[in-house]
Amino acid sequence: MSHIITVSREFGSGGRELGKRLADALGFSYFDREIVTALAAETGLDEEYLANSTETGALSQFPIHFARSFTQIPTVPNDVVKLMSMQTSLIKELAEKGNCVFVGRAADSILEEYNPFKIFVYADEQSKLDRCKQRAEEGENLTDREMLRAMKRIDKARAEFHDIISEYKWGDKEGYDLCINTTGLEIKKVIPALAEYYRNIAS
Amino acid sequence: MSHIITVSREFGSGGRELGKRLADALGFSYFDREIVTALAAETGLDEEYLANSTETGALSQFPIHFARSFTQIPTVPNDVVKLMSMQTSLIKELAEKGNCVFVGRAADSILEEYNPFKIFVYADEQSKLDRCKQRAEEGENLTDREMLRAMKRIDKARAEFHDIISEYKWGDKEGYDLCINTTGLEIKKVIPALAEYYRNIAS
Repeated sequence: MSHIITVSREFGSGGRELGKRLADALGFSYFDREIVTALAAETGLDEEYLANSTETGALSQFPIHFARSFTQIPTVPNDVVKLMSMQTSLIKELAEKGNCVFVGRAADSILEEYNPFKIFVYADEQSKLDRCKQRAEEGENLTDREMLRAMKRIDKARAEFHDIISEYKWGDKEGYDLCINTTGLEIKKVIPALAEYYRNIAS
Repeated sequence: MSHIITVSREFGSGGRELGKRLADALGFSYFDREIVTALAAETGLDEEYLANSTETGALSQFPIHFARSFTQIPTVPNDVVKLMSMQTSLIKELAEKGNCVFVGRAADSILEEYNPFKIFVYADEQSKLDRCKQRAEEGENLTDREMLRAMKRIDKARAEFHDIISEYKWGDKEGYDLCINTTGLEIKKVIPALAEYYRNIAS
């Protein structure tokens, strides 16, 4: 059976970076945006639209930051359930193919049967805000307050989406094997240790 | 300034073992029971009595498991505040002397000014129960239900004691740098990786 690591993360905590670097260190495949690309190819739907709606279940309308920019979801689709179902199948297919790291998309719960190693990445507010600002695209002129509000909404939507299909609440440490606070942390510094941690328990 | 690691833990999660092994791996001093021994020498009070009252602040009366056995605290002392104050001074003195790992006793909050690396160790109920049974002393004939109830009371008292002097709630991941779920984990296996994690961020 494949070795699976899932990374859930608060918005702005650097969970994507951690997941990608950890996958590289372990020689695992990495899936995040890749899931959306595959889904777009399959459905013919716009990739940016899918990027937003497939992680939150489009449970509410709000400005959502995905990848690197803030964009507006204009409408809530009627076929969200079908999309979610397609995404679930796709995540399972990918998991079948070999060792991999999944970031977000409630993969921790979707892949429960694979007994994934579950990581939750979090940080304090200021640290997340700083990280968001560093990677903000040109023309993204949100105030700190607007950015914080958007971050909270995104995490709320992620939590809601996750909790529909999960036995434990998003972010509750009981649901994860390791919770990593990235406040003041240079993520790449801890990757070798994290890779070793995983290797030691998976062996 | 000394390098300080604090380990807070749910009862039965193996936090003591993790703290001790991590200290050994890093060549750090380890303080847990040692604090009580020093306090007993200073006050002339019974060590077993101190072991119980100095971690919970004797906020309530309950059968408490410390070290390896369940014992009963007979009375709530009047001089708890003084004892707590002595313990605080002692913990700070020890921290001044060099690199060390502290387990419990709200050292995470007492030593805030040292910017300690804060670990929280937890596990699911069954796993904690199994661990308690393994190390139960002969003649300790508690049923699972009694043991669970005692475990919960101890954690509740630890939380209450901690939260009096801390800015964050005991066990809330936001207050810790790393939260480790020991469910199904062979603790000694992950020690080298944890030591490396710490070395990488402390360097």
